Amino acid sequence: MKLILATRNQHKIEEIKKILSEPDEEKLARSGDQASTNIATQKLEILTLRDFPDVPEVEETGKTMQENAILKAVAVYNATGIPALADDSGLEVDALKGAPGVVSARFAGQGCTYKDNNVKLLGLLKGIPEEKRGAAFRCVVALALNQNDVRIVEGKVRGVITDKEIGGNGFGYDPVFYHPESGKTFAELTQEEKNRVSHRGIAFRKAKELIKRLMTNNG
Amino acid sequence: MKLILATRNQHKIEEIKKILSEPDEEKLARSGDQASTNIATQKLEILTLRDFPDVPEVEETGKTMQENAILKAVAVYNATGIPALADDSGLEVDALKGAPGVVSARFAGQGCTYKDNNVKLLGLLKGIPEEKRGAAFRCVVALALNQNDVRIVEGKVRGVITDKEIGGNGFGYDPVFYHPESGKTFAELTQEEKNRVSHRGIAFRKAKELIKRLMTNNG
Repeated sequence: MKLILATRNQHKIEEIKKILSEPDEEKLARSGDQASTNIATQKLEILTLRDFPDVPEVEETGKTMQENAILKAVAVYNATGIPALADDSGLEVDALKGAPGVVSARFAGQGCTYKDNNVKLLGLLKGIPEEKRGAAFRCVVALALNQNDVRIVEGKVRGVITDKEIGGNGFGYDPVFYHPESGKTFAELTQEEKNRVSHRGIAFRKAKELIKRLMTNNG
Repeated sequence: MKLILATRNQHKIEEIKKILSEPDEEKLARSGDQASTNIATQKLEILTLRDFPDVPEVEETGKTMQENAILKAVAVYNATGIPALADDSGLEVDALKGAPGVVSARFAGQGCTYKDNNVKLLGLLKGIPEEKRGAAFRCVVALALNQNDVRIVEGKVRGVITDKEIGGNGFGYDPVFYHPESGKTFAELTQEEKNRVSHRGIAFRKAKELIKRLMTNNG
């Protein structure tokens, strides 16, 4: 089964491809044999919008992450005829009543850098004590399976916004998102560590389970 | 099962409620007993946005009818928590390369009347001979079943654009849409006759079948 990721963002592509190609934990635990277990994902051939340079970028006109994820998945399915997975992710900061949320990528303005967004966020939270700096990373994934069927799954992880950028891995808000269970910011985790706990990891593992279920029993 | 129609348009509400409450033809033919057959629809309680005055109208920002139908169904499900059915319908005129299509309702401008749209359309087709006045009514219906599942069905009917408005029934482009098999414009048909052949009738009967299937076998 071919599957297309509705993004050209190289950071996302790498992260998502790693998540989708993880061995199936449950089967792994049962058989102890990694090489022979990864059946479902061996059947998945993962393409991205980078393989379709003529398909235009989809505008994120939705009012919610869910709407944006659906719009992107549907548009890319319609343009390519290939089942499409799209995510829309964002950071929801308690003290900012859920902002930046659906505008996380362009919080500091159209065309801004990750750094611009982090500077703006840290500025807005200046002087706010740690116990009031709670936040959640949220990721909504839409799977446009065919022209009649769109499924949606979601992943969420809680953390605390730091008072300065820490760590050089990851991207986006990772350097300012402290994850208490890991004792580190997302930008201090390796990609593998981050994928285990991140919103995107949770959401795309759910998507993978869903795809496997749909491939096997048409449900 | 409650179901909400994501519209406040009284014409659409009447049409759709009639379609959804039709007896099941197949069972009807088998048992010959209308009263006892309409099981699936008896279980459906049909609400509309008129029952939820506080839920705002959803903006039709999509680039396609499919996108608009999905956006409306998802927004209304999110606002009400009730499985939501939304349609987006339009007239696609061959000689106008598929226009007015997704902008059918506002072809002559925001806030225009059905009459304004028909006058504009007839003006654009002035002098074009009958054999080049082919058109299709298309209806896309999205069912937001829950926050994880959106299904889409479609209905289409071919016709010919007349050179003047004919008939007083129906609404929208019905008076200028001649349906060859009926030998009449849609505005000359009774609602029952129109529902049997119309894009909206086809699409909502498919939606009804889908709902019945989802209610019985969780597929």
